[in-house]
Amino acid sequence: MQAPPRTLTVGILGGMGPAAGVDFLRHFVQACAEQVRALHLPPCDQSFPEHWLAQVPVPDRTAALQQPGAGGHQPLEPLLQALGRLAALGARSVAIACNTAHAWHGELQARFPGVELLHMAREVAQALAARGVREVGLLATEGTYRSGLYAQAMAQAGLRCHVPQRGERELLMRGIYDGVKAGDLALAQQCFAAVARDLVERHGLATLVLGCTEIPLALTQVPGVDGLALVDPAAVLAQALAQRAYGAAPA
Amino acid sequence: MQAPPRTLTVGILGGMGPAAGVDFLRHFVQACAEQVRALHLPPCDQSFPEHWLAQVPVPDRTAALQQPGAGGHQPLEPLLQALGRLAALGARSVAIACNTAHAWHGELQARFPGVELLHMAREVAQALAARGVREVGLLATEGTYRSGLYAQAMAQAGLRCHVPQRGERELLMRGIYDGVKAGDLALAQQCFAAVARDLVERHGLATLVLGCTEIPLALTQVPGVDGLALVDPAAVLAQALAQRAYGAAPA
Repeated sequence: MQAPPRTLTVGILGGMGPAAGVDFLRHFVQACAEQVRALHLPPCDQSFPEHWLAQVPVPDRTAALQQPGAGGHQPLEPLLQALGRLAALGARSVAIACNTAHAWHGELQARFPGVELLHMAREVAQALAARGVREVGLLATEGTYRSGLYAQAMAQAGLRCHVPQRGERELLMRGIYDGVKAGDLALAQQCFAAVARDLVERHGLATLVLGCTEIPLALTQVPGVDGLALVDPAAVLAQALAQRAYGAAPA
Repeated sequence: MQAPPRTLTVGILGGMGPAAGVDFLRHFVQACAEQVRALHLPPCDQSFPEHWLAQVPVPDRTAALQQPGAGGHQPLEPLLQALGRLAALGARSVAIACNTAHAWHGELQARFPGVELLHMAREVAQALAARGVREVGLLATEGTYRSGLYAQAMAQAGLRCHVPQRGERELLMRGIYDGVKAGDLALAQQCFAAVARDLVERHGLATLVLGCTEIPLALTQVPGVDGLALVDPAAVLAQALAQRAYGAAPA
C-alpha cells in the first residue's frame, strides 16, 4: 500500500456561529478530497491531514466593533485562547470561520507568530483578481463594513468594492440575526435576496461577495437575477487552508 | 439581554472518515439548536456549548480487527492521544464519530475515567427500545460485525439484530471503501441499497440501522422498499452528546 502523504496539522477557529463552522469544515474536507485526487494520493481516511476545529462562544463581533473603548476588545480574549490552544495542538496554519472576527486578525497573528493565520478577505481578493474580476458588491455585517476589511483587501488587489446603503445594511443584519442565527432561513433568504438585487442593479455588477459566513447558509441564488456569480469566502478560505495542509507555500 | 446558558464543553473524535466527521458535527449543531429552542434560550451563537472536533488519521479499524496479535491495536494509539487532548481541552463528554472504532471503547474509557465516553451502539439500542422497536437489521463494516458491538448492545436492550450474509457483507465493504471513502457515492448507494433490500425482505424488517458512519452519506432511502425506518446512529449519538452539553445526566 502507498505511504500516506506528508501533511501538516491545521486548525479552524469557529463557533461564529456554529452552523457556519460546520459549513466551513464541509468546504475544507471537500477541498482536501480535491487535493487527494490532484496529487494522486490513495483515496482513504489516512490521506487527509490532521485538523482540529474549535467551536467556542465568542461575544458578538459587530456589537463589539460598535462600542467605543475597551468593550470593543471583548471578542479578542476567547479568540486568543482558542488560537493558542490550536497552536499547542500543533496547527501550523489556522483559518477563522467568521468574516467579522478578522477585525482582530492583526492582534491575533502578532501574538502567535509561529502560526500562519490566514486572512479571509485577502484570500478572496487575490482569488478574484486572479480570475480577472475588477468590480464586486459586498454583502456583510455592519462590523465588517465598519472595519474596512474587504475595502482594504480589495483595494490592495486592484478591485473596486461596492457596499449597500444604510437601510439595506440593516436588512442584512436582520437576515443574519433574526434569520440564520435564530433558525429562520426563509426570513434570511428574503432579506439577503432583496439587498443583493438592489445592489447588483444599482451598479450593474456580475460578482457578489457573501462576506459573512451566515449569508451563504440562506442565499444560494438571487431570484430574478441571471448570470450573477456568488462568491463564498468560506469556500475560498477553506481551499487555501487545504493547500497549506498539503504543504503548499503561501501565495 | 438574557444570560447565556451554562453548558459543558464536549468533544468529538473524528476523521474516520473526515466526511463522516462533518456529518456528525452537522447533527450535533442541529441537536444543540433543538436544545436551545426546547430550553427557551436566546437563539444566538453564545447559546451553544464550546465543542472541539479532532479529525485525526487513524489506521483502518476493520483491517486491524482482522489482524491477530499486536497489529490489531494500531488504531488505539492515535485514538488515545486524541481523546487525551480533548480531555485536556476540558471536554467532559466525548463522542466517537465512527462505529467500528467503538471496538476500543472499553480501553479508551478505562484510560480516561474523568471523561464520559459515549457509546454509539448502546445509545442506539436504548433509543430504539424506548420507541418500542423489537427487531432490526444492521448494515455495518466487517470489523463492527466481528466485534459484536451492536449484537451485545441490542441484546442488552432486548432487541433482536439481523445481519447480512458473507457475500452481502463484502458488498457493503465495497460500498464503504471503493464508494464513500473514494468519493464514488453512486457506487456506494448501489451496494448499500442491494444489501438493505435483501436483508429487509429476508426477515420482514421495518427498521434498519446504518451502523457505519459512511453508509448514511450515500443511503437516504432504499428504492422499492416502502415504510422502512433508516436509523442513523450518528444522529442518535449527536443528540445524546448535545443533551450532555446542556447538562442532562446520562440516561
